[in-house]
Amino acid sequence: MTQPLPSAADVLAAAARIAPYAARTPVLRSRTLDGLAGARLHFKAENFQRMGAFKFRGACNAVWSLDPETAARGVVTHSSGNHGAALALAAGDRGIPAHVVVPEGAVASKLAAIQAYGATLHRCATTIAAREAKAAEVQALTGATLVHPYADPAVIAGQGTATLELLAEAGPLDAVITPVGGGGLVCGAALAAHGRDPRLPVFGAEPEGAAETFESLRLGRRVTEFVPDTICDGLRGTVGEVNLALMRAHGVRILRVSDAETVAAMRLVWERLKVIVEPSCATVLAAVLRYPDHFAGQRIGLILSGGNVDLAALPW
Amino acid sequence: MTQPLPSAADVLAAAARIAPYAARTPVLRSRTLDGLAGARLHFKAENFQRMGAFKFRGACNAVWSLDPETAARGVVTHSSGNHGAALALAAGDRGIPAHVVVPEGAVASKLAAIQAYGATLHRCATTIAAREAKAAEVQALTGATLVHPYADPAVIAGQGTATLELLAEAGPLDAVITPVGGGGLVCGAALAAHGRDPRLPVFGAEPEGAAETFESLRLGRRVTEFVPDTICDGLRGTVGEVNLALMRAHGVRILRVSDAETVAAMRLVWERLKVIVEPSCATVLAAVLRYPDHFAGQRIGLILSGGNVDLAALPW
Repeated sequence: MTQPLPSAADVLAAAARIAPYAARTPVLRSRTLDGLAGARLHFKAENFQRMGAFKFRGACNAVWSLDPETAARGVVTHSSGNHGAALALAAGDRGIPAHVVVPEGAVASKLAAIQAYGATLHRCATTIAAREAKAAEVQALTGATLVHPYADPAVIAGQGTATLELLAEAGPLDAVITPVGGGGLVCGAALAAHGRDPRLPVFGAEPEGAAETFESLRLGRRVTEFVPDTICDGLRGTVGEVNLALMRAHGVRILRVSDAETVAAMRLVWERLKVIVEPSCATVLAAVLRYPDHFAGQRIGLILSGGNVDLAALPW
Repeated sequence: MTQPLPSAADVLAAAARIAPYAARTPVLRSRTLDGLAGARLHFKAENFQRMGAFKFRGACNAVWSLDPETAARGVVTHSSGNHGAALALAAGDRGIPAHVVVPEGAVASKLAAIQAYGATLHRCATTIAAREAKAAEVQALTGATLVHPYADPAVIAGQGTATLELLAEAGPLDAVITPVGGGGLVCGAALAAHGRDPRLPVFGAEPEGAAETFESLRLGRRVTEFVPDTICDGLRGTVGEVNLALMRAHGVRILRVSDAETVAAMRLVWERLKVIVEPSCATVLAAVLRYPDHFAGQRIGLILSGGNVDLAALPW
């Protein structure tokens, strides 16, 4: 199935579509963090988004993009957690069934959230292949529409609405940076940013232990054979083909950070911004602190992607 | 020294005085917490206040209430942490010296904050008597004005501005509840609330292990001989005489909660509101959950007093 690449117009349409359901999250600042970074940092706090992560935006846009007859058969996805919960919640808003394929070893608090939002859980092995096979099986049995966590154009457009709001509230920025896992968020950010200013630099922050997006862009082909080794449980997925194509088209650059840098940055966010963010989020601050040459003296937009962290297992 | 009791008009004056310096903090909601409480909860997020706690409001009002000549000699206080940091920051805003007497065993992150804001630390033993003696000594040496953490009328009026903003944003409430340590916050809340509606119930939430405010109101005299035993490090102080008088005048009722209830409530706030709050804050949610008869079906205002927690020593 070939789908057209989403555009900046799709992000604007998504913003209108999800407005009745999604939260307009605040933009947070900290003088101390500005001082540490030598830049003016504007944090889009998607940890305050419904179900606690930006993923609700994309899932919501996908669910409400379906025609009524298709929607009635439900939606299905495979997800390490946040997208599954997001789809469950969005499907619940529309009153349609949601099926979520979850790998063994997923974070307990995220699985509990998915079930609390009313979705049916389907467990499978941890490989990407196993997840996709199980999702296809559920799809065949129920007629549900697959909503891919990051390669679905409606999901990408929905994620872009976070950057749209950030630009509206923070005013002109010199750069935007988001975490990179599958690439849905950073691609949405690039669409939204370049709809406003085609020359605005967009960066993705990626854990060194799951840097296949960086490798894929470097090699010019999608690297899929890798074993992620990072505490950033939201960023272990493989970058999507459509996501890679969009990143190339928009000149997105990837900055790699170590888990130690991410944990230190996460602690800074907790202590200084007083908000709960999950490790994946903190990659963006870690990148700004590690690569000052890209950001010194600038006005930077950073997406804090979510706050669903297991409080019984903090990384310090 | 006898000072007049502060009034609702003093809270309004404080709001105008601190407006250029203090943050107007958001009011947070959670459907899940509303469901658990069986009430509509409006959380005033003072963890987002400057230096991370409502204490900045009172300190700021006190510092800017001084005439220029008096202010130039500086300010001094004794504080287990947040008020000291607040006074240091407020004094820094005005460009005057701050001296802070801190007891041995105070939370490390709070002492670091006080020093970072430019105050001079003076260490003393942990008893109230030792703190007051050391503060008097500094006062005699420097000519600095003592700004008591909770008994100073300007401090009480300043703390009331949090409730003023909460009422403005949340609309009519059926009850307001704040933590109780020395009583500055709950008295400010009562002044602000009763300036709008003299019949609005105002509650203080107090740890069972430091419930001398409850005892003092019950016995009709200030209980000062007690050894606090609670994880709520911000609520270990003794209630002030002026604070007791105000509580009686305004019919403030004290609800006692156990540390276990407070820790459970703190975790709910972290998980559901996605904000960092210190244990003292969580007493208010713990009280609403423990005493549903007071709150069922109502619109409740809760002050989340601060977010300065030692992330390396979480209570779960």
